[in-house]
Amino acid sequence: MSVTDSFSIDPWGVAEHGLDLSGQARAESVFALSNGHIGLRGNLDEGEPHGLPGTYLNGVFELRPLPYAEGGYGYPESGQSVINVTNGKLVRLLVDDEPFDLRYGGLRSHQRSLDFRDGLLQRRVEWTSPAGRTVRVSSGRLVSLTQRAVAAVEYTVEAVDGPVRIVLQSELVANEQLPTHSEADPRAAAALEAPLVPEFQHASGTKAVLVHRTRYSGLRVAAGIDHLIEGPERVDVSAESSDDQGRISATTVLGAGQRLRLVKFIAYGWSATRSLPAVRDQVEAALTAARYTGWDGLVAEQRNYLGEFWSENDIEIEGDVELQQAVRFALFHVLQAGARSEERAIPAKGLTGPGYDGHSFWDTEAFVLPVLTYCLPAAVNQALRWRHTTLPMARDRAAQLGLAGAVFPWRTIRGEECSGYWPAGTAAFHIGADIAAAVVGYVRATGDQEFEREFGLELLVETARMWRSLGHHDAVGRFRIEGVTGPDEYSAVADNNVYTNLMAQSNLRHAAEAATRHQLEAAALGVDTEEAAAWRDAAAAMFIPYDEKLGVHPQADGFTDHQLWDFEGTPGEKYPLLLHYPYFDLYRKQVVKQADLVLAMQKRGDAFTEDQKARNFAYYERITVRDSSLSACTQAVIAAEVGQLDLAYDYTAEAALMDLHDLGGNTADGLHMASLAGACIALVAGFGGLRDHHEHLTFRPRLPSGLQRLSFSMKVRSSLLRVEITHDTTTYTVPRGGPITVQHDGETLRIGAAGAVSRPTAIVEVPADRCVQPPGREPARRHAQAGVQAGGVVVDHLPAE
Amino acid sequence: MSVTDSFSIDPWGVAEHGLDLSGQARAESVFALSNGHIGLRGNLDEGEPHGLPGTYLNGVFELRPLPYAEGGYGYPESGQSVINVTNGKLVRLLVDDEPFDLRYGGLRSHQRSLDFRDGLLQRRVEWTSPAGRTVRVSSGRLVSLTQRAVAAVEYTVEAVDGPVRIVLQSELVANEQLPTHSEADPRAAAALEAPLVPEFQHASGTKAVLVHRTRYSGLRVAAGIDHLIEGPERVDVSAESSDDQGRISATTVLGAGQRLRLVKFIAYGWSATRSLPAVRDQVEAALTAARYTGWDGLVAEQRNYLGEFWSENDIEIEGDVELQQAVRFALFHVLQAGARSEERAIPAKGLTGPGYDGHSFWDTEAFVLPVLTYCLPAAVNQALRWRHTTLPMARDRAAQLGLAGAVFPWRTIRGEECSGYWPAGTAAFHIGADIAAAVVGYVRATGDQEFEREFGLELLVETARMWRSLGHHDAVGRFRIEGVTGPDEYSAVADNNVYTNLMAQSNLRHAAEAATRHQLEAAALGVDTEEAAAWRDAAAAMFIPYDEKLGVHPQADGFTDHQLWDFEGTPGEKYPLLLHYPYFDLYRKQVVKQADLVLAMQKRGDAFTEDQKARNFAYYERITVRDSSLSACTQAVIAAEVGQLDLAYDYTAEAALMDLHDLGGNTADGLHMASLAGACIALVAGFGGLRDHHEHLTFRPRLPSGLQRLSFSMKVRSSLLRVEITHDTTTYTVPRGGPITVQHDGETLRIGAAGAVSRPTAIVEVPADRCVQPPGREPARRHAQAGVQAGGVVVDHLPAE
Repeated sequence: MSVTDSFSIDPWGVAEHGLDLSGQARAESVFALSNGHIGLRGNLDEGEPHGLPGTYLNGVFELRPLPYAEGGYGYPESGQSVINVTNGKLVRLLVDDEPFDLRYGGLRSHQRSLDFRDGLLQRRVEWTSPAGRTVRVSSGRLVSLTQRAVAAVEYTVEAVDGPVRIVLQSELVANEQLPTHSEADPRAAAALEAPLVPEFQHASGTKAVLVHRTRYSGLRVAAGIDHLIEGPERVDVSAESSDDQGRISATTVLGAGQRLRLVKFIAYGWSATRSLPAVRDQVEAALTAARYTGWDGLVAEQRNYLGEFWSENDIEIEGDVELQQAVRFALFHVLQAGARSEERAIPAKGLTGPGYDGHSFWDTEAFVLPVLTYCLPAAVNQALRWRHTTLPMARDRAAQLGLAGAVFPWRTIRGEECSGYWPAGTAAFHIGADIAAAVVGYVRATGDQEFEREFGLELLVETARMWRSLGHHDAVGRFRIEGVTGPDEYSAVADNNVYTNLMAQSNLRHAAEAATRHQLEAAALGVDTEEAAAWRDAAAAMFIPYDEKLGVHPQADGFTDHQLWDFEGTPGEKYPLLLHYPYFDLYRKQVVKQADLVLAMQKRGDAFTEDQKARNFAYYERITVRDSSLSACTQAVIAAEVGQLDLAYDYTAEAALMDLHDLGGNTADGLHMASLAGACIALVAGFGGLRDHHEHLTFRPRLPSGLQRLSFSMKVRSSLLRVEITHDTTTYTVPRGGPITVQHDGETLRIGAAGAVSRPTAIVEVPADRCVQPPGREPARRHAQAGVQAGGVVVDHLPAE
Repeated sequence: MSVTDSFSIDPWGVAEHGLDLSGQARAESVFALSNGHIGLRGNLDEGEPHGLPGTYLNGVFELRPLPYAEGGYGYPESGQSVINVTNGKLVRLLVDDEPFDLRYGGLRSHQRSLDFRDGLLQRRVEWTSPAGRTVRVSSGRLVSLTQRAVAAVEYTVEAVDGPVRIVLQSELVANEQLPTHSEADPRAAAALEAPLVPEFQHASGTKAVLVHRTRYSGLRVAAGIDHLIEGPERVDVSAESSDDQGRISATTVLGAGQRLRLVKFIAYGWSATRSLPAVRDQVEAALTAARYTGWDGLVAEQRNYLGEFWSENDIEIEGDVELQQAVRFALFHVLQAGARSEERAIPAKGLTGPGYDGHSFWDTEAFVLPVLTYCLPAAVNQALRWRHTTLPMARDRAAQLGLAGAVFPWRTIRGEECSGYWPAGTAAFHIGADIAAAVVGYVRATGDQEFEREFGLELLVETARMWRSLGHHDAVGRFRIEGVTGPDEYSAVADNNVYTNLMAQSNLRHAAEAATRHQLEAAALGVDTEEAAAWRDAAAAMFIPYDEKLGVHPQADGFTDHQLWDFEGTPGEKYPLLLHYPYFDLYRKQVVKQADLVLAMQKRGDAFTEDQKARNFAYYERITVRDSSLSACTQAVIAAEVGQLDLAYDYTAEAALMDLHDLGGNTADGLHMASLAGACIALVAGFGGLRDHHEHLTFRPRLPSGLQRLSFSMKVRSSLLRVEITHDTTTYTVPRGGPITVQHDGETLRIGAAGAVSRPTAIVEVPADRCVQPPGREPARRHAQAGVQAGGVVVDHLPAE
């Protein structure tokens, strides 16, 4: 079964027919359920066969040493890796003493589906055991969006021919054996092989609880299960537990057509500080609440939650069902990642897999939060409050690096820098400005002055301080930021990266403005008028290099003088380049892994003329290889802006299908949250032309020929703005809340009480030439509706693991 | 006892009076004996107490894994570390059953001395045992310069009061326990704790042999000892051996005034390929030869060898005895490092200690070989032949990095790249040009066309190919070399490093010229006229950045635009900076660890005007902190050239006293060969003004006020040129061989048959201002004759270990 055949196309869900053992890990990521606190990979109920078993709790990690062949001052010595916590979703089935294992016996049918409207992962199987007994198994699984600590499974087995003896073993298993990666650092593997040290175990009745503690990071993790069991008259139930296992067994004999139904409530809790009884009680309480709600109640809550979400946040597309599915898949997973993370990070893979060690990068602030800002602002509030909680660590890091203010980590779980290669890690100081931009975007969209005062201001101030101390004025008064790494990971440690300098400029300005708005709070942070003036001055004097000869912006000083990468001489199998060429060669040549200057043109579109945007885009298209999934969406946005609508459409599809089509070849390790969020950005900021640099939201809607209609909604302050775009007309409405002022192609419109406002959608003259990409790196043409996209492995963050 | 008190000042040797236990490791380095093949640290005969026991064989190393927190393509996975091989210099003494151990009993006198004229490390001790027995011990130790595999010890114990029972245990000990460094990588320590696996042991009569093999690198190491024992009538001798030990014991009773004398011959052999019997026999043969020569014979050979060396290579100084001692110390150790290395590397520490893992760097070609070229050219021939033997590895490395030709390793023992941090390792491609320059220098000085044809040509061709593929022509036809690291390790991965570009330019030109001289051999290497033309073209078009505004050369593109390091705000204890500040901060600011642009002005003085040299020197003096020992000598040379003679004198003394005064604080790990060689360069190229860029040797002699006379000799082709400089006159003579043409202050002189040629020594107008260094980093003023130099720890190669 090919990758693309795996999942059927359905505008409101993903379904898999049959079972592709080789693609299991990928399907486990696609079918992962999460609420941002608990993450369950889409493993089969019975645990095996599996691609990669995975149960994650946001913030639960183990420490591991970071080794260096040659050490250096300020290198982080300790890394953080997400761990697979106690697996509570296991339900094993014995059919006349033969384990229900799809690798044996006969699989008559197997179907799994995930509906974005109810968030249920449902499964239906008909299976004949090696001894010839046939059973129908159906299960439903959810991770509650309303009860943060709770997940649940409904599991039913029906005898097709009977009588058959059935044993259901519903389990909690800690320290599951994981598939080993031969290339991994053996010490990391050793540390993480059995990361949970047992502290407590109990089982009785239908309930079991296990409490463990991580060895080095000292986190206490409790998991509990409780059950409702319904079956024929006689069902024996027993409970057992040992250090790493809790098990409730239900045994019965089913006649033909009879069913045994088990509802399993699962609860998790963890803490770095609370006592064992406290954490255990918290889990038992969550179990009690879940039991009180019941399976149907949990399902109903989930449906309500999601119904509300979709009613206000759906992105509708006419003309491309596959893209419609992909963008809802994207929104659904972005929601899952952020919904209940609550003062924890949103990792690059959400809680869908162990990729990148479970770390969060700039992806969150630069891609995920801008989407959540307009659909789930409370999640953005929480995510930025998490950053705020890490300020003490970021200040320490700044001090260690000889800088003022705060230096946020390039990759982390708890807040400490975990990058083991500083040129592509710590040197990417732009993460500070990305966080600041997320703060500004959130406050602008929500008007949440309380947040700005209590959390946002300090984030802005401390990042502004960092920039002021990182840069310097040169002899002619230009403010320069040298020796840093921009978003493109095929360059490093360069001077005056345009993206970095422009983002720092905004950061400095917004910090000064916020300090003016909140003078008392700013004073409490030690900001005086001199300091704010120094920020304004640095921002005003910010140096932005420009290549007059070529008429384009170099990505950083000297970039356009560098040798061009030999694209013609680079065969397809040598991508991603970082796995086949040394950094030194990538860094010194003109080859771009991911949008950098082009991202600057999106995030700081106000700093470029139309003409510059067109020339820059064409220039960087020729040298951008998209070895990162954090690129296509940005290229889509700017392609749309410069009128390359078909190209924008191609890139939008690439971003949206990154995981459903496994374009990067590594969906197995978890979903690409930034690319999924990026698909939404590509539609809204690309074809919708949304920008939020200015006082009011600005739109420049224009559709590619492949789409008939695009509509989306945005929460702005307490109102809801709805935008519907066809090739003829763009219609703005405010179905909820007070009026909103927007710009449509430069015209200011007041949308509100007076009902819908429609304006013609601009007709874009198609540029004579489609921009050119490096040979073999062109995005798949979407209008061909081929379904399968070109592309190989993508690696979002250097280095490869 | 302070550092400077340790060693008395003597123009022909180093002597230590008393014993400073805390400074032992340093003294062991200073008193190390070596012939370039065998290296024995100056450990006490009885082994303990010790600073760091050390016995090294050039080329014997163990492999160890190089770990990375985040890996990357082309990162070396395996490192090489020099190991402490079987210790053959041990002679333990029991006095009435009490071990002769200076930590116990009463030390009446202790003196060690090393005479540069006979290469003997001599020791005289008078000691009273805890039980009150007094003995006089005297020993002599040598590592033969004439018998490459041989070392020897003469050990005499005399009873002051008798009768006393004496046992001498003369040993071979493998896998000696070494002091542990807590900060070391634990895995490295584990791998190297007992690196020798026993293969063979034998002891009988007065002879013992041990053969071991290294576990991972698979090198077979044999060590043998044989003895002559003279004493009173009855001396019992016994022989024993075990896996890691061979022991010959001599037992007797001495009456007052009686002596027991033991001569110990020690032989070593190792091979990666030969069989155990072959390596064992080789050692036994060397032992036989040594015994045949006898102690007195070995001493006489040594004295003759060194007598000849000094008669033709001494550098004489009048007016500064301490500097005279230091420069002879320097020449002696440079000789020891290179004399018999024979197709092996000359490590940064010679064979005097385990510093830098026993690796060789560019130090050899850039500092050590230019000295040996004019005094021991055969050693240069051998050292460059070693590089030639590593060409297959260097070609593989080039292919791995996507380059043509050969990429030589930044640090290695056998030839493979062992640097675990590429920005300060592999990216320092200049090592290729440094090797090429050493080839050119050797051939120019010796006229050794056979070497050029057989070895030199290929080294020039393969490095030229590397440069041609590393650089590229820009739109206006300039040849640019981007993303490389120059000598200064406080910058990395920059564009158009002036040193690198100028050295590459020479490399390309000389390769083209050599290919023209040896057309058949060049054709056999695949060089055609087009390729040679491409080299000439790239050399002619080489881009050398220049800052017109400041009137100085930036070290690399953009360097002079960078922020100045905050020298005023950097307290003395923060040096060396790399231990207290992150690379990212060092790299992006104007702060120089070691001469880079200034070294370019020495090595490629022809590429700068007088005026540029003066301005550049003054500019870089202000920002050069000399956290490397590879700097003072170069600063001395250019200081002298620009007329800053007193400053040149200060720097010369700093380079020369680096180890005798332990200015870097790490002499304990081994001597700084490049600084020692650099002291000679500072005198000859600095005050002598020697340059060899041109057809003939050019001199511009000028003495600082502190020196009355400087004379030195140089082997040029088959002649010997002697130069004697006083403040009034410079006299050139050719005591041996045919006439030589030189330039004196621009005047061409033919020196030879007609006897001495004298010319006035130029009187230099002292510049009004002494160049300024960063506060606290000024060299100690030599004219004050303070003896103690300022300075802290120096670390020649990033990163710190």
